[in-house]
Amino acid sequence: MKVPTKLVSAFRSRSAFLLAAHINPDGDSLGSCLALAEGLESLGKKVLIYSREGAPEFYRFMPGHKKIKSGIGKMPDKDTLLVLLDCNSPERAGLERQPCNASAVIDHHETESLFGDIRWIDRGAAATGLMVFHLLRALKIVVTKSMAVNLYTAMAVDTGSFRYSNTSPDVLRVAAELVEAGASPGMIAEHLYERWGKNRFDLLNLSLGTLEIRDRIAVMYITRDMFLKTGTAEADTENFANVPRTLDIVRISVLVREVDEGLWKVSMRSKGQANVAKIAEAHGGGGHRNAAGFKIKADFLSVIKTIFSEGGKVLAIK
Amino acid sequence: MKVPTKLVSAFRSRSAFLLAAHINPDGDSLGSCLALAEGLESLGKKVLIYSREGAPEFYRFMPGHKKIKSGIGKMPDKDTLLVLLDCNSPERAGLERQPCNASAVIDHHETESLFGDIRWIDRGAAATGLMVFHLLRALKIVVTKSMAVNLYTAMAVDTGSFRYSNTSPDVLRVAAELVEAGASPGMIAEHLYERWGKNRFDLLNLSLGTLEIRDRIAVMYITRDMFLKTGTAEADTENFANVPRTLDIVRISVLVREVDEGLWKVSMRSKGQANVAKIAEAHGGGGHRNAAGFKIKADFLSVIKTIFSEGGKVLAIK
Repeated sequence: MKVPTKLVSAFRSRSAFLLAAHINPDGDSLGSCLALAEGLESLGKKVLIYSREGAPEFYRFMPGHKKIKSGIGKMPDKDTLLVLLDCNSPERAGLERQPCNASAVIDHHETESLFGDIRWIDRGAAATGLMVFHLLRALKIVVTKSMAVNLYTAMAVDTGSFRYSNTSPDVLRVAAELVEAGASPGMIAEHLYERWGKNRFDLLNLSLGTLEIRDRIAVMYITRDMFLKTGTAEADTENFANVPRTLDIVRISVLVREVDEGLWKVSMRSKGQANVAKIAEAHGGGGHRNAAGFKIKADFLSVIKTIFSEGGKVLAIK
Repeated sequence: MKVPTKLVSAFRSRSAFLLAAHINPDGDSLGSCLALAEGLESLGKKVLIYSREGAPEFYRFMPGHKKIKSGIGKMPDKDTLLVLLDCNSPERAGLERQPCNASAVIDHHETESLFGDIRWIDRGAAATGLMVFHLLRALKIVVTKSMAVNLYTAMAVDTGSFRYSNTSPDVLRVAAELVEAGASPGMIAEHLYERWGKNRFDLLNLSLGTLEIRDRIAVMYITRDMFLKTGTAEADTENFANVPRTLDIVRISVLVREVDEGLWKVSMRSKGQANVAKIAEAHGGGGHRNAAGFKIKADFLSVIKTIFSEGGKVLAIK
């Protein structure tokens, strides 16, 4: 993986950085921010990490997560470089305006904006965390145990712990180096997949009860009532959309949940060539070929109809 | 990983081999047999692969699986070397007698017998497939695409696709080499985790309905009626025992199913230090610290009582 020289120079020459994760941050976005921040701090730089929602509870096992701020305040320095990680527009980072005079983008998403003075977007990279690993190496920064845990988590989240087709030899070799640097695959997997509360388990069982499969598309939903009944919130639905993927006949698996009165959040997961990012983009959302999402304000039945219809079109593309 | 010189010499000097998987073979046992067989054949050796149950349907995506025989017949040669893979006694391989004059064992299980003229048992190895990879390298055999698929599957099965604590840097580096040799992580994961029939999904939902959690031990069961109702068989319960592990409070997750009138098969999965192999051994079964099983002929209620009581003892060990 080739790190742009301009990017390496910017990190070497500047003294202050604002690292921003995307809204509703996942492990890749947060792990990339945390590892890069620690690396830059080891070089004596000033760093601020911004995530609109702070660090979600689910990710509070990640070392240094307390450094993540949900507000920006005053910039430490006027030459601060804004670095968007795992996203490529200020909007996706939850920033209403560009708060710095200069900006860089490190991302691997399909959906792309033209933002950024220095842009490193590698759609072929499995995770932004993998790109950050190579950036740290280009900066000759030694990976500490906490950086290793953050980068391993970043890659694990975006490769389904090495189960998705984006699991490249580079991903596996970097993972090996991160384990040597102190990351524990068992501990990280336990945090990602085995820390469910009973109420979350009950919510999954309730939503499985709504499962409908039609023309290789599986749809299940969660209403506000179901959240209330189980004492859960939207963040508890992480990974639910993947569950119906276990079914042989399913090519696209969709989870729809009511995040506000009449406002639905749709998460789609697909197998093989079915590109669900296309559906997300058509509704102002985004993501990757096999994992994408969007929000839609409409009545429930028309949401479901839209999903089956647009999913069918995606599956028809050979 | 150091491959015993004596073992390498035996593979070099002998001309015929009987490779045997363990009964109810899993991907590690089958993948190890298939990759080693192909490697030996490339050296012009005669090889027979024996698995008492043949190749279960679930694993019929593994290249060369048709070579696996459920009977031995006449030995091709009187100097044939019996090689037990992923097990270490003729009984575990479903062999009533030792059919050859010489034997070797390649295994990584906790439960150990004294069988074998040449013994290579590495409890620290994540998978027998990993050991076979190093053996092939010691024999200077080039790993083909089909060997890579078989060995990657072997390691994926025994590391929960790199989620268990046995995921070492060596496992990840070998996995990287296997991907370079042609193994596809996405395709293999799809076969292992995403090829469920709807009836299997229904069976899981039924068994989740029986879930009982007491003192950090989760137990769920499947009766013969539940198999009948969903048109499923015992082989369809693969991985079910792992599901309640997702719960934060659960340290030991147990699946009990009725395989015959009053005969129960118990599969246990644990997190961290809880050694369920101890429970399995006490009942004539076996396995690893975090995954083990046994069969028991008893009435249902006493089986459940035994599990909670012996599970509690294992959890009490600090």
